[in-house]
Formats: sequence, structure tokens, C-alpha cells
Amino acid sequence: MSLLSPVRAGQTADELTDDDAWLQAMLAAEAALVRAQSVLGLVPPGAARTITDVAHARTIDVAELARAARAAANPVVAMVERLTAAVAAVDPAAAEYVHRGSTSQDVLDTAGMMVARRCLEETLVDLGRARDAAARLARAHRDTVMAARTLAVHAVPTTFGLKAAGWLVALTERVDRLSTVCDTLPMQLGGAAGTLAGYVEYADPDDRDRYARRLATEYAAQVGLREPVLPWHTARAPVVELSNGLAVTTGVLGKIAVDVKTLSRTEIGEVAEPAAEGRGQSSAMPQKRNPVLSALIISAAVQVIPLAAGLGHSMLAEDERDAGLWHAEWQPMRECLRLSGAAAATTAELLEGLEVHPERMRENLARTGGLIVSERLAVALTDIVGKLAGKKLVSRAALESARTGRPLAEIVAEAPEVAGRRTVAEIAALLEPSAYLGTAGDMVDRALRYAEHK
Amino acid sequence: MSLLSPVRAGQTADELTDDDAWLQAMLAAEAALVRAQSVLGLVPPGAARTITDVAHARTIDVAELARAARAAANPVVAMVERLTAAVAAVDPAAAEYVHRGSTSQDVLDTAGMMVARRCLEETLVDLGRARDAAARLARAHRDTVMAARTLAVHAVPTTFGLKAAGWLVALTERVDRLSTVCDTLPMQLGGAAGTLAGYVEYADPDDRDRYARRLATEYAAQVGLREPVLPWHTARAPVVELSNGLAVTTGVLGKIAVDVKTLSRTEIGEVAEPAAEGRGQSSAMPQKRNPVLSALIISAAVQVIPLAAGLGHSMLAEDERDAGLWHAEWQPMRECLRLSGAAAATTAELLEGLEVHPERMRENLARTGGLIVSERLAVALTDIVGKLAGKKLVSRAALESARTGRPLAEIVAEAPEVAGRRTVAEIAALLEPSAYLGTAGDMVDRALRYAEHK
Amino acid sequence: MSLLSPVRAGQTADELTDDDAWLQAMLAAEAALVRAQSVLGLVPPGAARTITDVAHARTIDVAELARAARAAANPVVAMVERLTAAVAAVDPAAAEYVHRGSTSQDVLDTAGMMVARRCLEETLVDLGRARDAAARLARAHRDTVMAARTLAVHAVPTTFGLKAAGWLVALTERVDRLSTVCDTLPMQLGGAAGTLAGYVEYADPDDRDRYARRLATEYAAQVGLREPVLPWHTARAPVVELSNGLAVTTGVLGKIAVDVKTLSRTEIGEVAEPAAEGRGQSSAMPQKRNPVLSALIISAAVQVIPLAAGLGHSMLAEDERDAGLWHAEWQPMRECLRLSGAAAATTAELLEGLEVHPERMRENLARTGGLIVSERLAVALTDIVGKLAGKKLVSRAALESARTGRPLAEIVAEAPEVAGRRTVAEIAALLEPSAYLGTAGDMVDRALRYAEHK
Amino acid sequence: MSLLSPVRAGQTADELTDDDAWLQAMLAAEAALVRAQSVLGLVPPGAARTITDVAHARTIDVAELARAARAAANPVVAMVERLTAAVAAVDPAAAEYVHRGSTSQDVLDTAGMMVARRCLEETLVDLGRARDAAARLARAHRDTVMAARTLAVHAVPTTFGLKAAGWLVALTERVDRLSTVCDTLPMQLGGAAGTLAGYVEYADPDDRDRYARRLATEYAAQVGLREPVLPWHTARAPVVELSNGLAVTTGVLGKIAVDVKTLSRTEIGEVAEPAAEGRGQSSAMPQKRNPVLSALIISAAVQVIPLAAGLGHSMLAEDERDAGLWHAEWQPMRECLRLSGAAAATTAELLEGLEVHPERMRENLARTGGLIVSERLAVALTDIVGKLAGKKLVSRAALESARTGRPLAEIVAEAPEVAGRRTVAEIAALLEPSAYLGTAGDMVDRALRYAEHK
Repeated sequence: MSLLSPVRAGQTADELTDDDAWLQAMLAAEAALVRAQSVLGLVPPGAARTITDVAHARTIDVAELARAARAAANPVVAMVERLTAAVAAVDPAAAEYVHRGSTSQDVLDTAGMMVARRCLEETLVDLGRARDAAARLARAHRDTVMAARTLAVHAVPTTFGLKAAGWLVALTERVDRLSTVCDTLPMQLGGAAGTLAGYVEYADPDDRDRYARRLATEYAAQVGLREPVLPWHTARAPVVELSNGLAVTTGVLGKIAVDVKTLSRTEIGEVAEPAAEGRGQSSAMPQKRNPVLSALIISAAVQVIPLAAGLGHSMLAEDERDAGLWHAEWQPMRECLRLSGAAAATTAELLEGLEVHPERMRENLARTGGLIVSERLAVALTDIVGKLAGKKLVSRAALESARTGRPLAEIVAEAPEVAGRRTVAEIAALLEPSAYLGTAGDMVDRALRYAEHK
Repeated sequence: MSLLSPVRAGQTADELTDDDAWLQAMLAAEAALVRAQSVLGLVPPGAARTITDVAHARTIDVAELARAARAAANPVVAMVERLTAAVAAVDPAAAEYVHRGSTSQDVLDTAGMMVARRCLEETLVDLGRARDAAARLARAHRDTVMAARTLAVHAVPTTFGLKAAGWLVALTERVDRLSTVCDTLPMQLGGAAGTLAGYVEYADPDDRDRYARRLATEYAAQVGLREPVLPWHTARAPVVELSNGLAVTTGVLGKIAVDVKTLSRTEIGEVAEPAAEGRGQSSAMPQKRNPVLSALIISAAVQVIPLAAGLGHSMLAEDERDAGLWHAEWQPMRECLRLSGAAAATTAELLEGLEVHPERMRENLARTGGLIVSERLAVALTDIVGKLAGKKLVSRAALESARTGRPLAEIVAEAPEVAGRRTVAEIAALLEPSAYLGTAGDMVDRALRYAEHK
Repeated sequence: MSLLSPVRAGQTADELTDDDAWLQAMLAAEAALVRAQSVLGLVPPGAARTITDVAHARTIDVAELARAARAAANPVVAMVERLTAAVAAVDPAAAEYVHRGSTSQDVLDTAGMMVARRCLEETLVDLGRARDAAARLARAHRDTVMAARTLAVHAVPTTFGLKAAGWLVALTERVDRLSTVCDTLPMQLGGAAGTLAGYVEYADPDDRDRYARRLATEYAAQVGLREPVLPWHTARAPVVELSNGLAVTTGVLGKIAVDVKTLSRTEIGEVAEPAAEGRGQSSAMPQKRNPVLSALIISAAVQVIPLAAGLGHSMLAEDERDAGLWHAEWQPMRECLRLSGAAAATTAELLEGLEVHPERMRENLARTGGLIVSERLAVALTDIVGKLAGKKLVSRAALESARTGRPLAEIVAEAPEVAGRRTVAEIAALLEPSAYLGTAGDMVDRALRYAEHK
Repeated sequence: MSLLSPVRAGQTADELTDDDAWLQAMLAAEAALVRAQSVLGLVPPGAARTITDVAHARTIDVAELARAARAAANPVVAMVERLTAAVAAVDPAAAEYVHRGSTSQDVLDTAGMMVARRCLEETLVDLGRARDAAARLARAHRDTVMAARTLAVHAVPTTFGLKAAGWLVALTERVDRLSTVCDTLPMQLGGAAGTLAGYVEYADPDDRDRYARRLATEYAAQVGLREPVLPWHTARAPVVELSNGLAVTTGVLGKIAVDVKTLSRTEIGEVAEPAAEGRGQSSAMPQKRNPVLSALIISAAVQVIPLAAGLGHSMLAEDERDAGLWHAEWQPMRECLRLSGAAAATTAELLEGLEVHPERMRENLARTGGLIVSERLAVALTDIVGKLAGKKLVSRAALESARTGRPLAEIVAEAPEVAGRRTVAEIAALLEPSAYLGTAGDMVDRALRYAEHK
């Protein structure tokens, strides 16, 4: 089901979030629950072992299960029936312990977080690759001069290293934040309505509070997730913080792709996507080399942002379990996970092979005959004519230069306020782009240090 | 891939929009193009027949194709390669005519609209079923009195018929609008960048404009879609109007489901979802009968609304084809189609079997001892004490009644302004809910007539 | 309150939707209701005249009213108190007829639609101006050749006229659709919970249905809005269709702005925004001429799309009036109206003064040495080497040309399959951009005809 | 401009984010920049003092400024002109130092973060109030038994204390997260395109890197914001993380309001909003006491979630400054700040005065004749008939009890599998709701400890 989503087709994140992966996680959550109950002495170890052994996705027909899930509006009820039957076929006594005291949402929320954790781990690896590639680009092009563009037009000079350093810092921050999200994904354990009543009904009546606390700790350990303060059946911040985290992450990846796409424009040509056999082809035009990796990454970002927004509405859940909002979470959450994971892998591929063309950067800088450094010229004229008048003088001269094609330096040198106080050569020197880079190099160094120490 | 989307699992809309359906539509678009070119005399009829014969989804491995689609960021390039090879295996000469003059977006946009059209036709059938069921409910319960609720609390009396009439009108309007959307979905035919240059290159140089116009008309006929004024490669209103139309449709269905869910609350109990073996079960609580159909419908509405919003950003496409926004359309558009289609089918099922409990409606009305008709009482006192004073008097009496439990009629009758001018019995008569229904019955009749004549 | 929204600051749409305009519309709705009741004989004509005279926004302190609105969660209750007092000061008897039988939502929804109608009328004027300007551009540049760009890189030649024709068709469609929306905005009349009970309580008990129908017709006429089939207190399609209509409209405007912004890039320079004293200045860089009108238009589109999405959730209203969703509509609806209105005015300004630079278009076309017409070349080689082989040959030659800088025509002519069958001159002729425009000119003509006849 | 937004009308957050507040923050950012440059020795202290003195919002006509802002698409250019003129009127020499080396985005982004910081501080106070009120409710109702509801129907018993504890934990987490956001809001300092070139042009050429670093540190201190690693002109995570943080916060507040609204339903009546003169009135129905505070809070949440989503698209900024996406940030960001701030204040008001009705909770529990504890009964029958069979037996009995009205305990006791093994009294005892609360009390205690130690 990924023909319409080439960004994720065949990517690891796709496999880690497919129906089989979710079913396996649901079964793993059931098995972990029984093992936790067994550790606390309420289930025979043999039954826990049997259930763990049987709880494998291959024992259940996932397509048939999906259809059966309509009856309860979630797949857990039907999954429990099938798991119970499969366990009973091996050991009827053990079947009594399947899903004991539990509720659909405990299983599905925990499974969702297990799937998320596994997928995030992989995404973090790819984000790390993208970050390292950005660091290499920043270092290699620390002093490669290019035009900075604001509102689509040339602003002042900058370096490609500083642009890559911006990507680097953003990626480093995302690795940091997403790692925190990954490490704090909570398990769910509340029972039918969050009181744990079903679970503790089997415990010693005098020891229920302590039993419940130990069960939560043991279950969290078994599933490899954080133990929350309370059940979160209708306190959906964990889901929304996860999806928001993924939206910001794909946003960062999308920004990189937008930059690459823009710099790949035929008229700009300052970078090119890594070449690969057959990549970037058009079905019509033989000469085309489309920035397809960028297009794929952007397509993911543009999808994840509204999906995450939709998940935001989950917060407004009613009562102890919502009728509809909870059910609307699963598919968009999966989509966020796999699109962001695939976008991370695609960005790593993009940055690891990115071609940079410093000569085109210099050509483009030269196109406006020094106009790109007019901010500096205005500053340099400040002590002659004042700040405001300097800016106006340069503004007028820039318009004249653009209209007539005469060099800006000549026009300025001839201005009555300037004539005799600065030579054409002095003014021309002020208009050398590589001499007006501010502290771009130092900022690249700082970004590299920041990324190393994170 | 629908384990996490029980609302659509196994539903017709799911099948009509799956990868096979899209691939088949892409192949059908290619075949239709060749047939159109053949009708105009530029392709031998035999080649058109061969290509039409070969263009079947079963000849292509869709999962493998999905992975190959990454290279071009869309599945058409790889599909054309495979189709061409398959045609060449039968008739090498015919292979030359596959995708001739065309571009990926012509094929994919046309295929998307073919999928949409087919799915909408089915959705319209189910919307029609839901509408008819709403009409039956409105007619049957034209005079069934119940409490109207505003801001969650009792307002004034209304009828269940009027509530169902509201559903009926909304569904009728949606059938109307969605039919228009369905009937005006456009095909796409522009060639590499919207000039049709590739297509007309094969035509008589002196007759290209006429050829292009005839090709468009013939192609539209072959694919069963509207002929647009111009190609719409980056004029994406058709996609956004489709998804907005689906969002409003699922919104209407979601409103019905919200009403059913609310009226199903244990304390309210005025309706119940149709019973079915195993439906609405909880994995924990044996007594539960959850309004699962409503939950499923709401889950669809809550997903489609932000998906449609995301598609809105497609409008901001760059140049003659966007790098990313177009690619972000396909999956959300499919999701909108199948979720709304499934929601329509589920709503039909819900309304066709809805249980209505008039006796619970009467019980609930009686709970507030006539307070629900206090608006009328205030009006009735207007000629004694004036409008404002009447409202204040009733307001005070209502608070006292709520606090003390004494009948509202008695308290009002004892008020100095009223005493001696209205008896308790007269006031009590004013508080009969069934006597304060405005023109609810007439409105039901009007809604039924409106629906019949649409 | 528009310092942060320069797109609408000082624009007509801003004024037509401000607090004063809404208050005036609310008062106008109250007055219209009384006049309608008077026409039907239930209110003395003098009272209706007095209320109409007093119902002016200047009689109420809108800031104080806004704060008072918190008590009822909507501004109507407090407005009615102030209006009643103001009427009573003139004619105490008339005060009894203010808001008689009515409910807050009838007044606020009707007022909202009156504001919307007035604002849409103005927006339609500006859309018409933008459309006319697009038509002039399309006609003037029917044959101005430029590069079409797909996925950000040169694709095939097109004309600026065809690009402008695309804007023209999209604007024409929007004028058409938005006119329909404007002409079908409904009034609201339902009373406390949609049964009209409060209104008909004052009518002859034997004639209530007919009275209600006549009241609705008369009220609709008085407020200049459509009479809906039923009250739509919780059937919110009118609001969502309005905001969706505005979202698609600003999307169309945003697409135009995106095109202008892209073509304004320093390296592309094919168009420039209309110059105006002080416009497009940077606070730092004297040479800058930023595409500020485009930025403003895009800023509106990017805001309206998610605002409309948020309004989509209004559909899921509970019962006969929602507690929260209705209250969340007003501000976003206003924002959609004024942003889209301002974007329409700004687009008219942009297109009316747009500078087009055909010479830069030719320069840019020439940059790739004919590669932009390689699709045509591939087609032309079809009869020599076949379609697939032709495309591959050109693809190889394009890469070599890009690498070595040698003319594409020479490289192709030397290819073994071609040598001796086509001369360099013949191939070079095939690579003339202006000879590969498909039916662009005819499509411009068709678009102009379409716009004229709409 | 808050007539349509009663949730924020007259609230502190409204004032802290209005046009005057933003203008004042912009001026404060300019003054802070000059002071920082003065501390580093590049501006005479007297000039810095003069600029600081003049930089007050009252010196500028904000409405006129808003209109002037269109020329540059942002208000900074025009603000700098007016500030410069005002400074020049006092001290012409000082005017040269206004905005020296700076760019519009440095000023506007820094000002935005100053406004955000101030508003968040106030919001955090109100969130703290709401949290403390939730803690009091949790403690007071630790053992107040009520029905837990899932999918809108009775599930198992719970306590109102546990529900309030859920609010408490969620609010405590939000205070924690939002405090972090508040403390890490960054200032912006990059100059025309992020290289700091304009700023360091005035510094000693041999010391520019060190000067730039010191300037950033000093500026951050002057404006009271975090110093970022690099300028973030087109790395918009700070804006998106702020708005996402606000969306999750209003989501938590919205969940509380949804619970209060539901429990306020006439048929449920378990809580009531705090009474206040005039609050919750209907314009039509004298008896109504609408949950208006809940409606206001929900209205805020429903608006902030899509606004934050819209801001997510800012991430995809082009180049070194975007043309449109940046400009689309300001108004939605303000709206998020003031709606969430107002929602926090309103929630504090709601929870501080919330009325709880334990007797209605008991009545509602009793309505289903013990069915709400059927989960427990099924468990208790496990050792007699097994888990699955137990659940089925209870399920059948529940249906019969619902149909016939006979007590559940009797029906179960008569079942062949049970007869003679459990008495009616034993079964009835199992159905006492207060005996099936799991560890609700212990969970309340844990939540209170968690909130205290945060």
C-alpha cells in the first residue's frame, strides 16, 4: 500500500510500521503483561512461557483480523479471541491468563508506543547520518562564498558552509529532542477505565496498591517503555507530543529539501542531487534531472504537518475513553512515523551525495555587479554622509546601475557627496563579496562544535 | 493495511482505492490515450487494441513497482517501462505508441480522478441509503417529543422527527453537491508542461490546434471525465474541491454519529445502535454495548478534515509542476476517498437499524419538572408583567424549584405579580412539553418534501 | 489590531469585518426581525420603526460589550440588554418587541452571514479586477516564449501568455464559485432550539405553521440572505462551505503570487512587481526590491487554509447547539473573510502593474543550449531509431552536452545511429524553442473566450 | 477586536499581546540592541540612553504604522523611520545609531519572543492556579465514587478524585513543559542574511568574531531571552515548538472543559460550573444555566490546534528569509498566545469554583442495577466456570436484566452453572460499586505527590 507514497516505499520505516508490525506489537504487549503478572506470582510461569511462545503475528491472519476489528471498533477484542484460541490449542489452562484484567486500550496504546519506539530508533540513526553529512558540508564549504537570498532576491553574500551549518544545528537539535521523546514514550496500563480494578481483583485484597505499583513497573520494563504517573487513556499528550515532534523533524528535513530544490533551479544551479542510475527522470523529457529526493522529502513534510494537527484534536477526549477521537489516532500516527522515518533516510541519502558547485555560486554573485554588497557600501559612506543619506545614495545608485548597466562603483564615485572623497577603486574594493561575510566562518566553527558536543 | 482503520476495513471504498485499483486506473488512462489517438488516426487500431488488452494490473507486480517509483518520485515512469515491455512482448511495433507525447502527471492525475469517480459513485449510493433511512426516521417520529439540548443542557422541547429531518436535509444537500463534484471531475491532458507539444508533434503541422482540441474531447470521453478548459498541472482546485467536498460530507456523517453517541449515553438512553452479534463489545466489560458504529464514523470525520486541509496547501504549486506538493496529494486524497466512502456505508448501516426509545425521551423531559418549557411560561406572563420582568420571574422561580424540588407551577402561581391572575393548573398546562413544539411537525414535512424533490 | 497583518492593514475587507461592522450587523438582524414581525402584523409599525432607528452601533460601547459577552459566552445577550435599554429610553412600549421569540444564535449567525455577504461582494470586485488584469497579460503575451519549469528545472518551452491564461481561468472559476456562495448565504431563524416555538407563540394558534413560513421568507428578504430549508444551528455546512470557498480562492491567489515570486528571483528576473515609492524596501539593504505584494498574498493564503480546516471541525456539533465549536467559529471566519478579501485586492494591484521582461525569458531559455527542446528532438528521432532508443540517445547526448559544453545538436548529429541521416543544421532547427510551443497560443485564445463568456 | 472572542475579551493575555504590546516590544528590542552596542563600546552611552528614552509606543501612531507596514510587508521598516525621526528630534547625532547593522527580522522575531515570554509568564501563573484547584478537588473527592464512562456508556466505577487527579497530572506536566519553553525562547540576531556582517562592519576588523559573540551575549541579556547557537531566520523550530506547546496546553485545558461540560448535562448533573451573577444565561430560556466557561475554554482549544498546525508550515522556509511564510507567522502566533493564556485563566476560574454533586454520582451509578460492576462479577465467576465462559454468562445475564428489569444478581444466581455455588446476596455484594475501585485512591495520592514534587 505504498504505490502512492514513493518517499516511503521499500524504506525501513514502512516495514516497521505495517500491519504485521502493529499486530506483533499487540501480541508482544499481551505476552509482556502475562510475564509481568507471572513475575509477581499471579500467573504460573509455564502459562506465561506458553503465551509468549504463541504470541506471534504469523499465527493470526492479519487481513481477516482487520475486518473483524469493525465489531468492536478496534482490533484488540478480535485479536484476544484468536490469541486465546491459539493458546488453548496448546495449553487450555494457560488460555485463562490471556489479557487477564486488561482492556483494549492498554494493549493498543502500549503496542503503538512500542512500534513508535522501534521506528524512532531507526529514524534517529538516519537523522544522525544526515547530521554528519551536513557537518561535512559545513566544514568543506566553510569559506565557499555564495549569495544569500531573502524574499527570493539577492541580499548579501554568505557562505554555503553557513547554510549547511544551519542544517547541522537544526538536525542536531532534532536528534536531541526526538531522542528524549523516544526515551520517554509511556506504556499504558489502566484496566477498563483507569482504576486498575481488573488487574488487582486477582491480587491479595490487603496488598492491592503495592501490587498495582509493582505490576506497572514490571510491565514497563517488559515492554521497554516509561512508566507514566497515571494511565493516560484520555490524557493524550504522549501521542500529540510524539506527532508534533515528528512534524518539527520533517519540517527541518523539508527546509533542507526546499533549499536543495531552490539551489537546483536551472538558472541557479549551485547544487545538484546525487546522481543515480535512472533517478530524476521524466517520462517525457530526456534531458531532465529532477530533484526527486527533495520532492520526496518535501512531500513527507507537507503530509506530516497536517496529520499531526489532526492528532492534536485527540486531546479533547471525553470521559474515560473517547468514542471516535481515540480511534482516529492510530492510522495518522502510523503515517507520521513512517513518513518522517522515510524522510530522514531520504535526507541522509540526499546530503551524503550532494554535489556543490562553487563556480556557479561565484557566477551568480557576480550577476548583479556588486549590488549584493550595497549594504556594506551604505555603511562605508556613513561617516561621509550619515547613515540615512548613505542608504538613500546607494539605493539611487543601485537603481541607476540596474537601469543603465553601468558599474555601481562608478556611479557612486561620481555622486556629488562622494566625488573626491572615495575613488572608484576604493568603492569597487568595498563591493567584493568575499570581504563582506561577517562572521560566517566563525559561526560555522561554532555550529560544528555544538554538534560535536551534543 | 487497514488493521488500524476499522472504519474502512473490508468496505467497498477500501478496495476501490487500493494500490491495485490505482494501478489499474493508470493503465486504463494509458490505454484510453492510445485509443483516443487511434480514433484521430495517429495510431493504428491494432496497436490501440493490443495496448488496451495488455494494460491490466495483473501484468505488473505492484509492490515492486511501488519501490521502483522512488527513482522518478512517481509511479508512472516505472509503470510505463513495464507496460511498454509487456506490450513489446506481444507486438513490438505497438510498444512505440505507449505513453506517446504524454507525461507522468497526465496519467496520474487522470487515474486519480478515475479512482475518485468510481469511489464517489459508490459513496453516493450509501449516502442515498443513509438519506432514505433518515427520511423514514423523520416520518416515523414526526411527533415523538424529546428534549432539545443546547450547550449540553435541556433547552426547550423538540421532536426526534425534527432531529432526523436535520440529518435528512444535510444528507440530501451532500448527495446533491457530491454528485456535482463527481460529474465534473476533470481528466488531465497537458503534456510535459501544459502546452500539449508532445502530443501534437505527431499531428499534421497545419492542423495542430484542431487536433489538440479533438484529442482532449476524445480522451475525456474515453476516461469518462470532464474536459477542463486548460490543463491543471498546477491549478489544483479540482483536487481541493474534491477533498473539501469529502470533508463536508464526512462532517455531516460525523454530526449524525455525534448525535447518536450522545443520545446513547447511559443516562440519556434515547437511541441505541443496531444490535449485531458481537458488535460493540468491550474486551473487559461484559455488559457494555458501545456505540461503535458512531465511533467509527466520527473517527473517519476527524481524520478527513485535517487531510483535506493538508491538500489545501497543494494550491500553492510552483511553476508548471511542483516538486513536493503534487507528490503529497496522492495518499491523502486516497485516504479522504476511502474514509468518507466507508463512513457513508457505516452511517447507512447505523441509521437503517437505529433503535429509538420514545419512552426514555419522555422520562428525560419529565426530569426537570416542566423547567424545559419555561421559555413559554415567560412569554405567557408577558401580558401580565412584561417581557423582561416575565423572564426574570421565571428565572427566579426556576432556581427555587431546582433548589427546593417544589413544582415550578406552584412557585410561579404564588408570585405576587401572578397570584390571582393565573391558577396553578393554568400554569401547569403551559408547562406541557408536547404543547410547545413550535412548528416542528411542519418543518419535518417540509424537509421530507425537499428531499423528495431533489 | 492589524500591525501583525500588513496584508489587510487599511484594506476595505478589514473595515468590513471589524467589531463595529459585526455589531452593526447584529443590530441590523434584530431590527430586521422586528420589521418582519411587523409586516406580519404582530408588532406595531411604530415599534419596528423605533427599534430600527435605535439599532445603530454608535449607541453601544463595543469594547465594553466585548467584555460583557463572556457571561453568556456570546455577545448577543449583552447586546440585547443594551439595545432594549436604548429603545426603552425612547419608547418603553417598543422595548418589549426587541428580540422577541428569538435566540442568540439566530442573531449572531444571521449577522455573520450579512458581514460575509458584504465582504464577499467587495472581494468579488477585486477578484474581477485581478481576472481582467490576467486577461490583459494573457493577450499581450500570447506569443512571448519562456521556459516552462517542472520540479524547479527547465522542462520545455511555453509562453508567458499561457501562464497568465492559467491564472485567468482559475480566477474566472473562483469568481463564479464565490458568487454562488455569496448569493446563497443563508439567514438563521430557529428560535431557542430550532422549532421556532418562541416566534410562533405570539401568532394565532391555528395559523402557526403558515405564520412561521411567512416569517422566514420575510426575514430573509429583510436581511438580504437566502431562506434555508431548516434552521442550521448545528448543521454547519454553510460556514464550512464559505470558509472552504475562501481557502480555495486565496489558494488561487497564492499560486499567482508564488509564480511572481519565483520569476522575480535575481537569477530568473522574468517579471517584477509594480514599483511604488518605498515599496519592497529592506531595512538593511539599499539595493533590494523585494516582491512584497507576493509575500503578502502568500501570507494570506498560508493563514486561510488552516483556518478553514479548523472551521471544518464545526461540523461535529452536538445536539441543538454546541458548547464550544460554535463559539470557535466567529473569529476564524472573520479572519478568513478579511485575509481573502485583502489578498484579492493585493493581487489586483500586483497583476495590474506587473512588469514582464520577455528579453530575460529569452536569455534564460538560451542558457541550456537547446536542451529544453530535447523532448522534441527525441520525438523527431523516433522514426530513425524508435521511441525508447530516441529518448535514450538524447538523454546521453544531453548529459555529454552539459558536461562538455558542446552544442547538443553536434553531439546528436555525430551519433552513429543519426550520422548521415540528419545534419547538424536540421537538428539545431528542431531545437528552436519558439517552434515547440504545442498549442499554447490556441489555449490562450480559448481561455480568453472562456473568461469572456462566464 | 475581541467582540468575537469572548474567551479572551478583557483578559490579561489579550492586553499583553495587542498591537501596543508588540510595538513596545519592537521598540524595546531596538533600544536593547543599541545598549548592547554601547556596552561593547561602539555607541556613545548618551545615544543609547536617548534612544532608550524615546523608544516608547506612545510616540508612534500604531494604526498609521500598521498601514505603512504594507510597503515593506513588515512593520519594522516604517517603525525604524518613525523612531529615527523621533530620536533625531531630541538628538540628531543619536539618530545615526538607531537599528545600526540590523535587519527587520532581528527586531520582529526578538520582539515576538519578548511578547511570548511575558504572556507565557502570566499563563503559567494561571495554569498554576488551575493545577492547585485540581489538586484540591482530587484530595477532597479522593473517595467520591462515580461512574467511569467509556465510549459514552457506563464502564466500571471510578472516583471523582481520580478524574481530578488526571487533570492535576496533565496540568502539572504542562506547567513543567511550558516553563521550559518560556525559559528557552531565543532572541534573534543575524543581520541582513544571518552572517552578522552589518553589525561587525563597525567593529575592529581584527576582532570581529569575538565582537559578534559578545554582542549576541549582551543582546540576549538585555532582552531577557536565550542566546541561540545560530540565527534562526529560516530555522523556525522555536516558533513551532512554542505554538505546539500552546496547542498541547489548551488541549489539556480543553479536556477538562469537555469533562465538565459532559458531567453538567441535565441527565448527568454531577458537576456544575461556578455560579455568578448573569453567567450562563440564555437570551431565550430563563431556566438555563449553560456551562459557558467550558464552552469558552473549548472554543480556545479548537482554535489553537489548527493555528499551531498552520504555523508548522513555517518550517519550510526558503533561502535566508522566506517571502510569505514568515509573514504568515505573526498573527497566528499572537492568537495562540492570547487564546491559550485566556483559556488558562478561564480554567482556573472554572476549577476554583466547580460544584461537585456526589449524590448525583451515586444516583447515576445506581441506574443500571449493578451492571456497572459486571466486569468484577465475570472475574469472580472465573474459578467456577472459567474466564471466557464467565464473561459470556454475565453478558447474557446483563442483556436479560436490561430487557426485563430483574436484578442482575438474581439472574446470575439462577444460572445453572452458578446455582447452588453462589447466593444472590453474595453476588449482590460483588456488585457494590464502591468495592470495585481498584487502586483509585492510591493513584490519587500518587498524583498529589507528583504534583507537589514538580
